[in-house]
Amino acid sequence: MELEEFKREIDPLILDFLDRKIKNLPSHANKNVDYYLEYLKKFLTEGKRIRPYLAYITYKAYGGKKDKEAINLLIFLELFHAFALIHDDIMDKADKRHDIPTAHQYIKSYVSNIRDIDSLHFGVSEAILLGDYLYSWTNELLNSNKKFEEKILRKVRDIFFRMNDEVFLGQMIDFDITLNEKANEKDITDKTILKTAYYSFVRPMHIGAALTGNSFDEKFFINFGKALGLAFQTQDDLLDIKYDESQTHKSSFNDIAARQQTVFVYHVFHKGSKSQKDLLSRYFGKKLNNSEKLKLRKIFEDSGAINYGEKIMKENFNQARKILMKQKIDKKHKTQFLNLVEKIERRTS
Amino acid sequence: MELEEFKREIDPLILDFLDRKIKNLPSHANKNVDYYLEYLKKFLTEGKRIRPYLAYITYKAYGGKKDKEAINLLIFLELFHAFALIHDDIMDKADKRHDIPTAHQYIKSYVSNIRDIDSLHFGVSEAILLGDYLYSWTNELLNSNKKFEEKILRKVRDIFFRMNDEVFLGQMIDFDITLNEKANEKDITDKTILKTAYYSFVRPMHIGAALTGNSFDEKFFINFGKALGLAFQTQDDLLDIKYDESQTHKSSFNDIAARQQTVFVYHVFHKGSKSQKDLLSRYFGKKLNNSEKLKLRKIFEDSGAINYGEKIMKENFNQARKILMKQKIDKKHKTQFLNLVEKIERRTS
Repeated sequence: MELEEFKREIDPLILDFLDRKIKNLPSHANKNVDYYLEYLKKFLTEGKRIRPYLAYITYKAYGGKKDKEAINLLIFLELFHAFALIHDDIMDKADKRHDIPTAHQYIKSYVSNIRDIDSLHFGVSEAILLGDYLYSWTNELLNSNKKFEEKILRKVRDIFFRMNDEVFLGQMIDFDITLNEKANEKDITDKTILKTAYYSFVRPMHIGAALTGNSFDEKFFINFGKALGLAFQTQDDLLDIKYDESQTHKSSFNDIAARQQTVFVYHVFHKGSKSQKDLLSRYFGKKLNNSEKLKLRKIFEDSGAINYGEKIMKENFNQARKILMKQKIDKKHKTQFLNLVEKIERRTS
Repeated sequence: MELEEFKREIDPLILDFLDRKIKNLPSHANKNVDYYLEYLKKFLTEGKRIRPYLAYITYKAYGGKKDKEAINLLIFLELFHAFALIHDDIMDKADKRHDIPTAHQYIKSYVSNIRDIDSLHFGVSEAILLGDYLYSWTNELLNSNKKFEEKILRKVRDIFFRMNDEVFLGQMIDFDITLNEKANEKDITDKTILKTAYYSFVRPMHIGAALTGNSFDEKFFINFGKALGLAFQTQDDLLDIKYDESQTHKSSFNDIAARQQTVFVYHVFHKGSKSQKDLLSRYFGKKLNNSEKLKLRKIFEDSGAINYGEKIMKENFNQARKILMKQKIDKKHKTQFLNLVEKIERRTS
């Protein structure tokens, strides 16, 4: 099954689950709360489903046979992801994601005409709770499953909790290094490995394999996931500065506004000319207007940062493919992994 | 076992658990993150442990025999509570809790001398993650327990997830009604029942009883918990406006600053004189200075709001006792419940 078909299968399951959960909340009189909760359904119709798909093809490659049951369980990865994004978007002060407002912005707009209300704080507060709900439902879903043996589920939950520890730590470091213009290189590596490589690639594969109940070698997931993760993160950072919003469907130069440490920022601050460094320093932490965006984009190009980043990206995509080719997986499943790498490499959003 | 002795037993278990979790996080180079995580240990040395204690005495009253194992498991209620408080304090813009700074304030102070940093936003962001960590560890602890039968644990987790749905909904409503000066009365009742009665009393008892594996009647928990919850919430709201900070160890008039709908606010807005309403309206949503606090306190007294609230409180504490007296529980355990009600009734913080 390719990614697009998988998305068509899993999407209705995600929405059904949300619908059921929201309908079964305790009865109450507050209509606004219903409006806030509706956002979760809007938000979760979007997304590429890369993480559950990767878990799924790993499940198949390692001999998993319960296709439907596996997909039904793996929606937990999307619920968790949506939770993490809602909380992250608060921290990054992001306004848009997937072409729709972020949760706190959606709620902020709803109350912005009410007198004496700090509408941003209000939006942030209710959005924290929307995230908490999704996280609770992630755990509930993992707990209530009866289609897999308890022993297997326990193992999956163990990996899931390890992933939680990793991704929160990655996010804590990621946010912490926004304190300084020149971040410690080790911090940048740590956060990319924890928050991108392990979270998006290593652990989904690990979970897919564990779900089979069969034996597996974690090393393949780690090596492949690290290469793919490094490529993916660099690509993500590149999309933020190289393309227009019309193309990526996200606000651009958001990383700059949020003082995110990327390989591109690092390159300009360490290899750029004095005037290039000064301009980046002046713009760092600012929401830029269009002409400022063009100026800064030119600096990323002229300083060689973009070339450098594109090289890292390419090398790591190739490295991921090389690791795949060497791995003993049958051809049919190997092709699915290779196709996924290619799809990620070609993404524009 | 009385509450104080229980606290002495459970406190080291909570700190040991946190210590182990923090030490076992993936290795990293970021010292600030270690400083943020240390906060969790400071925060969790405080607290009265009412929820796990209530679960514990219910466990004993319904025939539970594994004392140590039960206490070890019930720390999950305190981890969850600390998570909920950290996120709530962000929403309520609270500066202090238990005489120490709230999580976001603790982190805000740490970075407040760094140039160009929105230190409050930074504190809030890292505090959201501290909460997320505690919430994850709550689930992990419930998942990894091997001292109780899986069937029992599954039941406990089911109740826990129901409690999650209730408390988040209660908090969403609670925060939503800060939008209006005059809240819908049904909203106020809904949030008090969900967020105080069920969360602090009904579900802890329910969990304690479920942990025995024996049969029980949920109705007792609901009736007793609702009366105690209504009394407790009214008392909580009273403590905010009637006493000085030196006595309660929390900032006072915080509910007013956070536009919280309490029975006292409701009373003044519906039964107060025009000048009383006007003053409350002017102060609603404001951080008050000391002379403003004194003025507002006088209005709560003169309007009869405080008398009215104290009456509700007294009636409901008595109602809780009446329900207890009628319940078939042996005398020894009944005394523990009665002592707890009395301790709550006498609290000044």
